[in-house]
Amino acid sequence: MLDVEAALAVGGARVGLLPEPAAMSIAAACRSELYDVAAIARGSASDATPVIELVRQLRALVAPEVQPHVHPVATSQDIVDTATMLVARRALDAALGDARAVASALASLAVEHRDTLQVGRTLLQHGAVTTFGAVCASRLVAVDDAVAGVARVLRDRCAVQLGGSVGTLAAAGDSGPALVAEVARELRLAIPVVPWHTERGRVAELAAAAGILVGELAAVAQDIVLLSASEVGEVAVAHPGSSSVMGHKRNPASAVLAIACAHRVPGLVATALAGMPQELQRATGRWQAEWGTLTDLLRLVGGTARHTAATLDGLHVDRVRMRAHVDDLVSAGVDSSVGSAALFVDRALQQHADQDLGGSR
Amino acid sequence: MLDVEAALAVGGARVGLLPEPAAMSIAAACRSELYDVAAIARGSASDATPVIELVRQLRALVAPEVQPHVHPVATSQDIVDTATMLVARRALDAALGDARAVASALASLAVEHRDTLQVGRTLLQHGAVTTFGAVCASRLVAVDDAVAGVARVLRDRCAVQLGGSVGTLAAAGDSGPALVAEVARELRLAIPVVPWHTERGRVAELAAAAGILVGELAAVAQDIVLLSASEVGEVAVAHPGSSSVMGHKRNPASAVLAIACAHRVPGLVATALAGMPQELQRATGRWQAEWGTLTDLLRLVGGTARHTAATLDGLHVDRVRMRAHVDDLVSAGVDSSVGSAALFVDRALQQHADQDLGGSR
Amino acid sequence: MLDVEAALAVGGARVGLLPEPAAMSIAAACRSELYDVAAIARGSASDATPVIELVRQLRALVAPEVQPHVHPVATSQDIVDTATMLVARRALDAALGDARAVASALASLAVEHRDTLQVGRTLLQHGAVTTFGAVCASRLVAVDDAVAGVARVLRDRCAVQLGGSVGTLAAAGDSGPALVAEVARELRLAIPVVPWHTERGRVAELAAAAGILVGELAAVAQDIVLLSASEVGEVAVAHPGSSSVMGHKRNPASAVLAIACAHRVPGLVATALAGMPQELQRATGRWQAEWGTLTDLLRLVGGTARHTAATLDGLHVDRVRMRAHVDDLVSAGVDSSVGSAALFVDRALQQHADQDLGGSR
Amino acid sequence: MLDVEAALAVGGARVGLLPEPAAMSIAAACRSELYDVAAIARGSASDATPVIELVRQLRALVAPEVQPHVHPVATSQDIVDTATMLVARRALDAALGDARAVASALASLAVEHRDTLQVGRTLLQHGAVTTFGAVCASRLVAVDDAVAGVARVLRDRCAVQLGGSVGTLAAAGDSGPALVAEVARELRLAIPVVPWHTERGRVAELAAAAGILVGELAAVAQDIVLLSASEVGEVAVAHPGSSSVMGHKRNPASAVLAIACAHRVPGLVATALAGMPQELQRATGRWQAEWGTLTDLLRLVGGTARHTAATLDGLHVDRVRMRAHVDDLVSAGVDSSVGSAALFVDRALQQHADQDLGGSR
Repeated sequence: MLDVEAALAVGGARVGLLPEPAAMSIAAACRSELYDVAAIARGSASDATPVIELVRQLRALVAPEVQPHVHPVATSQDIVDTATMLVARRALDAALGDARAVASALASLAVEHRDTLQVGRTLLQHGAVTTFGAVCASRLVAVDDAVAGVARVLRDRCAVQLGGSVGTLAAAGDSGPALVAEVARELRLAIPVVPWHTERGRVAELAAAAGILVGELAAVAQDIVLLSASEVGEVAVAHPGSSSVMGHKRNPASAVLAIACAHRVPGLVATALAGMPQELQRATGRWQAEWGTLTDLLRLVGGTARHTAATLDGLHVDRVRMRAHVDDLVSAGVDSSVGSAALFVDRALQQHADQDLGGSR
Repeated sequence: MLDVEAALAVGGARVGLLPEPAAMSIAAACRSELYDVAAIARGSASDATPVIELVRQLRALVAPEVQPHVHPVATSQDIVDTATMLVARRALDAALGDARAVASALASLAVEHRDTLQVGRTLLQHGAVTTFGAVCASRLVAVDDAVAGVARVLRDRCAVQLGGSVGTLAAAGDSGPALVAEVARELRLAIPVVPWHTERGRVAELAAAAGILVGELAAVAQDIVLLSASEVGEVAVAHPGSSSVMGHKRNPASAVLAIACAHRVPGLVATALAGMPQELQRATGRWQAEWGTLTDLLRLVGGTARHTAATLDGLHVDRVRMRAHVDDLVSAGVDSSVGSAALFVDRALQQHADQDLGGSR
Repeated sequence: MLDVEAALAVGGARVGLLPEPAAMSIAAACRSELYDVAAIARGSASDATPVIELVRQLRALVAPEVQPHVHPVATSQDIVDTATMLVARRALDAALGDARAVASALASLAVEHRDTLQVGRTLLQHGAVTTFGAVCASRLVAVDDAVAGVARVLRDRCAVQLGGSVGTLAAAGDSGPALVAEVARELRLAIPVVPWHTERGRVAELAAAAGILVGELAAVAQDIVLLSASEVGEVAVAHPGSSSVMGHKRNPASAVLAIACAHRVPGLVATALAGMPQELQRATGRWQAEWGTLTDLLRLVGGTARHTAATLDGLHVDRVRMRAHVDDLVSAGVDSSVGSAALFVDRALQQHADQDLGGSR
Repeated sequence: MLDVEAALAVGGARVGLLPEPAAMSIAAACRSELYDVAAIARGSASDATPVIELVRQLRALVAPEVQPHVHPVATSQDIVDTATMLVARRALDAALGDARAVASALASLAVEHRDTLQVGRTLLQHGAVTTFGAVCASRLVAVDDAVAGVARVLRDRCAVQLGGSVGTLAAAGDSGPALVAEVARELRLAIPVVPWHTERGRVAELAAAAGILVGELAAVAQDIVLLSASEVGEVAVAHPGSSSVMGHKRNPASAVLAIACAHRVPGLVATALAGMPQELQRATGRWQAEWGTLTDLLRLVGGTARHTAATLDGLHVDRVRMRAHVDDLVSAGVDSSVGSAALFVDRALQQHADQDLGGSR
């Protein structure tokens, strides 16, 4: 929020709404260590927005002649929404880093096990023969697609919010659109066609894209849990969790935590979607419900990605065991041909390489 | 599903997997009126898939020498998933038609009321002055964006599913990829990089994009309910619902139904997202849970769009009442300037016009 | 709804609101085969309630002098809400029948396998030794508790709804409360303290109790899927589903369908809960959203219960395989004592027997 | 968790599993200020449970000869689940306090406005006449019922969890059930029939009852928002929130925050319900997902209750305005009789008084 207030001051000065020295002074006061966060929390509870107390503190930090220039044009929601976009980008950039590590690990496994036969399991029953490389390749394509989806929303839909009290930018006189452009430039956010106080598609798209990434990552973690089950034992995590009373176990702790984080996400996406129909020019609860929903969601996306990456890190693949299961199935009369498995590995790796070079779906 | 079986036969013939006359014969038998749907439903309950009984009936409809050529290469899920994509496209195309009618109505209102002053309401309290045109323009941008989002998923992510039992296309020999391409061409669906039996990002993207469209449409319907409340009375629906005992009322029935449909969607999107982590090569419940979830979702997207369109159809706008509320607010000392309201109307209309010409965000 | 209209007429006659012959005539016309259901559906779409068209048709079925007596006192929502309670009871009674069959099957397994050693699996890793009887007993207690929960809500919270247009029963004069009591008696529903048009706790309690039952049943089905996985093989379903291309498989189809039904329920419960804050004296969408939500929910509770019961029907338990897994674990140095396992079986069976005798938690 | 470890030691000593001095020493070390919480958090991330590191620190705080007696019999989940019950009770007791304040405020309003005529609004349209007392009485009954629901779950279903590694209490020898009883007595929790490691009905019941309370409270808050809308103005909050730029507004900030908290709850209840089907003897993610879900849920129940209570505190009711709206409606030809409104007020107050005396539904 302080980054937004600073950008607002700097941008405001550029379009002539306040003197540049005042803007510099305001921007200099926008350092989080100068603020009483507990007081802002208390203010949020009485005002239903954290901005009023934040602005009060910001004003108290600047010279009296600068105070009238603090927080120009904006309504509280402008600050919170724009800050939300900044926070979402920061959090999702980190999560994308871990998700890309998952993709890289899957790509490596796909290369290494391009021809490693494995039993394909449908409804957890042995079905027919495939390759572990093809299995990894399928997950790789899904993770790459989901990463591209999040990246697209971050690039195209993370926009500045600046509308003033009822979305007209009335307090900016003729400078409104220019001010929006300057703030957007300052914060590297997109310029929206119009303010979006009660049109929450942008937030919902962020939540949905993150939710889809989480779903694809959790599928990977779940596969590891299933393939490392005692009776299956085709893979084993490199860093098992401890057990308080069963020392012999090798718990796939990271995979379990990835699934746990992921389990909590769909409900939060639903909460974000259910919050979309916001009333007239400012919502009576659904907007305010977004704050904690998104915070939780971003944390959980990060947790899912980090734990899934940890699950694959150093994963031990037991080729002998994989082969024994295949041999059992083949000796039961099932054909061992793997059709286009290798081709699918190659295609997945090709798309992965293209995406790394900046391509997107 | 019959369209998919027909395409599979025709495509299979093109790549040499079956004789063309057999394919023609199969395709000719793929007419829904020839099937016992109740038996297929019963089969679904015992086999956990409708395809086995469907294929049994299809086989019984063709000559004995053609029977071995029915349902080549595919596993049950291939048929269901590809059919899901066809059904989703059909249903969403209809919903997009209604959503575009909503956008058109909003665009007309924005043009007509570009300069009609209206009180902007925040937390349902009179806040500051805006224009009804700007209010409509904000919703217009949101609906146009959401329509574009659904259209993008339909265009880019609706892919054929064809992997065979465990995703290797083993039964197609070397013809697997060519067969996929032929079936995709036949059904005008995208060719996936790899089969996606347990990677459900495509389904989740469809659900999410539809959910976001629903949210933006419901916001429009909710605005109409609020602005047509007895005490506000700034708009009135042209086709009110009847009341069983209160004949004097003008119930905004379509708007209420739009909100009701929309209310049910976020939970379904969550169900779709929660269904993403599917096990290994075939899910043990989450895939099967998609069928009814998507059917409900598609119905409700259609319902939301249709009822929102009906709400706006012939909407009566009471300029006098709008003006009286503005006058009250201004006489209470609030400034009447509307800043960039007209500019925002123009921008929204420009994006709307561009989108009509085929542009997308 | 027709049952409610009939009860309303009969009850109304008892308290003197209409002549008894008129009531008899109305009740006689309340047979569903006399109605044009499609017309009622169309009416629902234009009026946002099915009742107006229903009452119109009902009126047309009685003599002119009876027509003014049709649908006394009630508002549309009274009919729908009371009918909802009847439908919920009918549907849940059936589901409880299947859930009790699940409990019986679990009780039988617990008795039979009271001392059958089995490996306890935590995070799908072999942990320590337990008995298959104790495993079944734990699920038995959970299913019994959940059945009791649904039964309690059906008994205590399924109430008649009758308030008239805004909940005052104004049209009943002094006879309002007596009318409510008569209608409740006629339909064997509870008498509410006050009308509950926009207080939806009753509906939410039904949804939640059903959702909890579904969760406990799905846990049983999931255990069967896991224990019948190819590598585990400790149980096998008696009636496997067919596979379109993998004839050797024994798919636990019923268990998968139970899980699939169950997967769809939490989102519906959330939709019901999210629908609770209804506006003033009649909701603008959230009430109307309940109709389809509950219909879906009731179907899925029934589906979960039926498929779980089918899963356990004739379940084959492979004691040899169970024992072999135990032996492996014990030979790896894990203690084979099973502590209070048998005691827990006895306790669970005792609670089960008590509950059958009419006790409840 | 430390309370549980202490109770386990004390209870263990009572049944002879460890010397009483050792138990006293352990209990004395169970003070939260002695622990490195950040290290426990890190341990949670590597072990997928906080208990291993917690027990390690606890052991380090006691004398060497006491160390073997720390954390007897229990598995990690026993500690977390029992602690969850303690935390839930503590948090919900506080929320119930605020919810009862809401009920008291509604009861006072119902008494005071037993005969204050008010327009009943259906679909936000003026429908017919009721009393503000009856409106408050309806909400009162709903809140009282929901409070009773939460209280019932707290009383009957909050049980100790103690099963050891796979639910057999093997490490307790013959003392298992006695140990459970002692721990339950120590912590004032119910004794479960059997351990419930993967039977999560208790948790789901807590979540559902809390969710229903939230829904009924939010309905109250929403009514206040609607009735305090500028055009309606029949009530006004005593402590409005500030607005950053629109000083003339009286924002119903507490009501908005109550709605915002409540909006986030259904998704969390769904997450809890979706987490019920847990695998065999320990879940691979769904149990671990409960931790944060419940924490969020408990916070939000508290927030909803506190903010709703604040909304009603000192609420200003504008009888003149209520009367003017009634007069408008009556002059439009609508009957002014209010039927059983006063009777409903009396009934609601009677139930409220009964419940205060300890009765429950």
